[in-house]
Amino acid sequence: MNQDTTVHNSQLSPSRLSSLKTMAQRLRRHSIISTTEAASGHPTTCCSCADIVATLFFNNHLRFEVPNPLNIYNDRFILSKGHAAPVLWAAWAEAGAYPVDRMLTLRRIDSELEGHPTFRSPYAGAATGSLGQGLSIGLGIALAARLDQTGARVYVLLGDGEVAEGAVWEAAALAAHYHTDHLIAIVDVNRLGQSQATMYGHNLTPYEARFQANGWRTLVVDGHNIEEVNRALSTAETSSGLPTAIIARTIKGKGISFLEDRNGWHGKPLKKGEELEKALAELGSNLDLQEPLMVAPAPKSQVPTKVAASLASPPEYAVGDQVATREAYGNALQKLGSTNKAIMALDGDVKNSTYSEKFLKEFPDRFVECFIAEQNMVGTAVGLASQGKIPFCSTFACFFSRAYDFIRMAGIGQVDLKLCGSHAGVSIGEDGVSQMGLEDIAMMRAIAGSTVLYPSDGTSAERMVELAAQTPGIVYIRTSRPKTPVLYNAFEPFKVGGSKVLKSSNQDKATVVAAGITIQEALKAYEQLRQEGIAVRVIDLYSVKPLDFDTLRKAARETGAIITVEDHYPEGGLGEAVLAALAGETCKFRKLAVNDIPRSGKPAELIDMFGISARHVIQAVKEMI
Amino acid sequence: MNQDTTVHNSQLSPSRLSSLKTMAQRLRRHSIISTTEAASGHPTTCCSCADIVATLFFNNHLRFEVPNPLNIYNDRFILSKGHAAPVLWAAWAEAGAYPVDRMLTLRRIDSELEGHPTFRSPYAGAATGSLGQGLSIGLGIALAARLDQTGARVYVLLGDGEVAEGAVWEAAALAAHYHTDHLIAIVDVNRLGQSQATMYGHNLTPYEARFQANGWRTLVVDGHNIEEVNRALSTAETSSGLPTAIIARTIKGKGISFLEDRNGWHGKPLKKGEELEKALAELGSNLDLQEPLMVAPAPKSQVPTKVAASLASPPEYAVGDQVATREAYGNALQKLGSTNKAIMALDGDVKNSTYSEKFLKEFPDRFVECFIAEQNMVGTAVGLASQGKIPFCSTFACFFSRAYDFIRMAGIGQVDLKLCGSHAGVSIGEDGVSQMGLEDIAMMRAIAGSTVLYPSDGTSAERMVELAAQTPGIVYIRTSRPKTPVLYNAFEPFKVGGSKVLKSSNQDKATVVAAGITIQEALKAYEQLRQEGIAVRVIDLYSVKPLDFDTLRKAARETGAIITVEDHYPEGGLGEAVLAALAGETCKFRKLAVNDIPRSGKPAELIDMFGISARHVIQAVKEMI
Repeated sequence: MNQDTTVHNSQLSPSRLSSLKTMAQRLRRHSIISTTEAASGHPTTCCSCADIVATLFFNNHLRFEVPNPLNIYNDRFILSKGHAAPVLWAAWAEAGAYPVDRMLTLRRIDSELEGHPTFRSPYAGAATGSLGQGLSIGLGIALAARLDQTGARVYVLLGDGEVAEGAVWEAAALAAHYHTDHLIAIVDVNRLGQSQATMYGHNLTPYEARFQANGWRTLVVDGHNIEEVNRALSTAETSSGLPTAIIARTIKGKGISFLEDRNGWHGKPLKKGEELEKALAELGSNLDLQEPLMVAPAPKSQVPTKVAASLASPPEYAVGDQVATREAYGNALQKLGSTNKAIMALDGDVKNSTYSEKFLKEFPDRFVECFIAEQNMVGTAVGLASQGKIPFCSTFACFFSRAYDFIRMAGIGQVDLKLCGSHAGVSIGEDGVSQMGLEDIAMMRAIAGSTVLYPSDGTSAERMVELAAQTPGIVYIRTSRPKTPVLYNAFEPFKVGGSKVLKSSNQDKATVVAAGITIQEALKAYEQLRQEGIAVRVIDLYSVKPLDFDTLRKAARETGAIITVEDHYPEGGLGEAVLAALAGETCKFRKLAVNDIPRSGKPAELIDMFGISARHVIQAVKEMI
Repeated sequence: MNQDTTVHNSQLSPSRLSSLKTMAQRLRRHSIISTTEAASGHPTTCCSCADIVATLFFNNHLRFEVPNPLNIYNDRFILSKGHAAPVLWAAWAEAGAYPVDRMLTLRRIDSELEGHPTFRSPYAGAATGSLGQGLSIGLGIALAARLDQTGARVYVLLGDGEVAEGAVWEAAALAAHYHTDHLIAIVDVNRLGQSQATMYGHNLTPYEARFQANGWRTLVVDGHNIEEVNRALSTAETSSGLPTAIIARTIKGKGISFLEDRNGWHGKPLKKGEELEKALAELGSNLDLQEPLMVAPAPKSQVPTKVAASLASPPEYAVGDQVATREAYGNALQKLGSTNKAIMALDGDVKNSTYSEKFLKEFPDRFVECFIAEQNMVGTAVGLASQGKIPFCSTFACFFSRAYDFIRMAGIGQVDLKLCGSHAGVSIGEDGVSQMGLEDIAMMRAIAGSTVLYPSDGTSAERMVELAAQTPGIVYIRTSRPKTPVLYNAFEPFKVGGSKVLKSSNQDKATVVAAGITIQEALKAYEQLRQEGIAVRVIDLYSVKPLDFDTLRKAARETGAIITVEDHYPEGGLGEAVLAALAGETCKFRKLAVNDIPRSGKPAELIDMFGISARHVIQAVKEMI
């Protein structure tokens, strides 16, 4: 049954209107009872948007195959104001996704109905709860729907407080730029934040003006007038070439007289007993629907299928060739793209530096230029991934710090997201410290379920890109700016959790563990020490998370001294990972890392000045043996 | 000499106009020669803003005591588009800050004239180079100027590309909210980003519309018409109650025919020889000024003086009292505020959760409500700190991840910035994983020059706040949501790099190292093990960075087993710091940390489910001894 986007009940029958009003009261009731039962949560913010959610779900706006939440033909509803989770869980319960009484498990340790939407419920749409991320995710879903030509629409419900987050405006600007007129934002302007009134209170003009200034169509409604909300949704669903923002004036705590528009009721459930009973009485004792309400079906059914991703051809570098790992990233991404149509690339206006422009040239339809807005780049990728795409975001390693909260949320959302940070460390040279990724390994290792890869040459860089596409969850690849000699031939195998012993003998007096640019320093040190008659082992620790513990422990036991050397600050990087993993081994340890705030200078000067050159490795070895 | 803001040369004399035009050409010349000499850098972006910078600096707009860059009566110029550093260095050279020939040291390892502005030059105004941060910093400076009643103005020069960063709009909205009409943004709309045209190219309307929608006055100019730029600056300097944005249409590479408006010239210097000579010839062979140009003086001279910050009274909790460390933070902040007027507090609409509302009640003038926009909160604090304030930003620990790039830049800028992250870890309970700071220690430890403190009770929490105010650089304090028993009396001393041995005997078979909420689990484990006849040492490692290495090593050597336990992910936290520091000691090690993606649930359930409860500590001890 194909749903025509133009067929809506713009005029509601009295029975439909009555039923929608009752449904909104039911959603309020479920939200209030469940938060009281949980003794925590945010009932008042559920009350402000209950009429909107009821209309959206139950009057042929949202089209969704309820038993099949992964169907890419489903419209999507993203609750960006994630603390209103109870109303989301309530709506899906009323839609038949699960029994209504499951609401009573809200926030229990064994329930998928968590305090904020998480991956544990397939109806969450996206993990939210860090405010201001939903519109970016919605934009990604909208772009996926366009690519897949599903005709699906995306609805994002935002709170007014979260619109202060700049990421919302990054998403807004880009959505207009890409004319995603099937993306509909609804702003629940209930006037009250957590600790006080929002910046604009009930003045809707700044919301309208800002969305308009960013290229959106805007519609203003009374968010408790179901007929108005319904008309606005119907209008929003007619194509205008522009995304639409519905700005809804609402009352926090609507429906319960002693909660309405009151400060101090954010994140506060009602007490059992009199308080709860009074609220429920106000919502009405008879909440039977005059006519049954259902979610409209999706037009078709198709779940994204995972297709293996592999390089179209092996790396083509000869050992000893000078290749920058960032350029190999670009080559590999292009090769991956030709074997798997789910591969996509996103950029923050540095594609000529990260080399993702190679992918753009081949696959312009699967490339999303996000301009200089890294938060939205990651959020958009999260949305794309939720529709079965395999998005690779790339920018300078340091600029992923801009998107760390988005990456954090993607991690706890178990999103299949691939990130490549180029220009890592002091080896970038003259641009100076603001452009040097020096904390990126620490940052990425600490992401739930992440994998961190750090190739040392062009061949391994290409294989890391292939591994990233094949590995679930967040995979971070760290690339370097300078060209370095190719170390491996095209068929050298690499794996997540692996390493390569580049130099080894049974005379080794110490082991140098490095990755990326410092492998070159380790090899220089090896050569000089060899000439002095000192044998050292050299390990390319290309998988920084997970670690190849066995190889490292073997080296510790066989050589008795471990020196780590990395183009990164001393905390949370490769060195700390290795030392912490090997703590307890009878072995000497030394960690060489960037030991002060770097500056502009030539790469070789900086590598030496900040303590990670061959000279420092040699000195450490000599001091330790 | 007091500069009246209304006295400007709105009408420029022919000789002044000629001189300003020549000065702009000089700035271009310096930018081009210095980047060619450095063989790297961004000359074309300097050329687009040279006329603006010349007019701002040399026609009585910027008022600045050149020999005294720290004078709080100086107007401030922040180069948000930090890659245009050469034009900044050139302007200050022409202003007499240092000899013009120092430009030839640009980007050299021994030069303070770095590739992007850093703290190494006192004329930088702020460390920039990560785009989209300057307006927030400017807002902080403007708020400081208002507090100090200096009458100083703040000029922020932004690129058009960077306006895609949402943080710009966070700052814009808040500046209008606080009516900082002495904050003037100038957007250099040169149409071209690094890798392609910007989203809007030379269409100025979206820039105007967006600033207006955020409550700004806007003025549109031809950025190469010095008379227009001059008039706009004069208008901007007249108070309107609104901040002003000057939207300047410019040409990237302006002045050099073969660079003008061409893609592919971002971050590319001219080649020595013919290319350079041709450019210099086009800029003019005679760049003598018709009349001398100087920066207008500041009206007064005063450098911020550092005043000792200490608690007005000692902590007042009795040992055993139930106190949440987050509440103690609020108490201490209020007490600090009464001894030192430089102390300020900034909030992201969670002041009733972090307890910074206690400071607000006492010192409303020194409290900045930043609403839900953490990037701008941190950027504003950076600006305040640059004027001698001691800003404390507080929000949930997890939401500092939103501002990580700002914190990174503050770290490399050596800014005296204090951050308090509340609601750390799974112990927050039912709100679920999106609200749990589980990577904040990793993130904050990796910041250059940072200090990381993690109090375990109310008394120590108050002392950590005091220590934070007294310690230079970025200090992060991690607080917890639940109430826990007070451990220390009011006069217990604490220090950066210290720890407390809470339980110790010469029979200790193992050492449990904990901090914050897990101290309670360690103490429970101690008690139960004691009853079973097993003595363990318990260390409160309240200073996570720097570590009390001596105490930890002594414990390793005396007890032979170290168990770390923390409410944080396993990477980059307390455990990894301790294990990496002690690697090489002959000792057994076990790291207990949050071992999977948490969920909603009761705090005690979560602490147990995710592997950090007393039960797990006891099990580890028994397995190890």
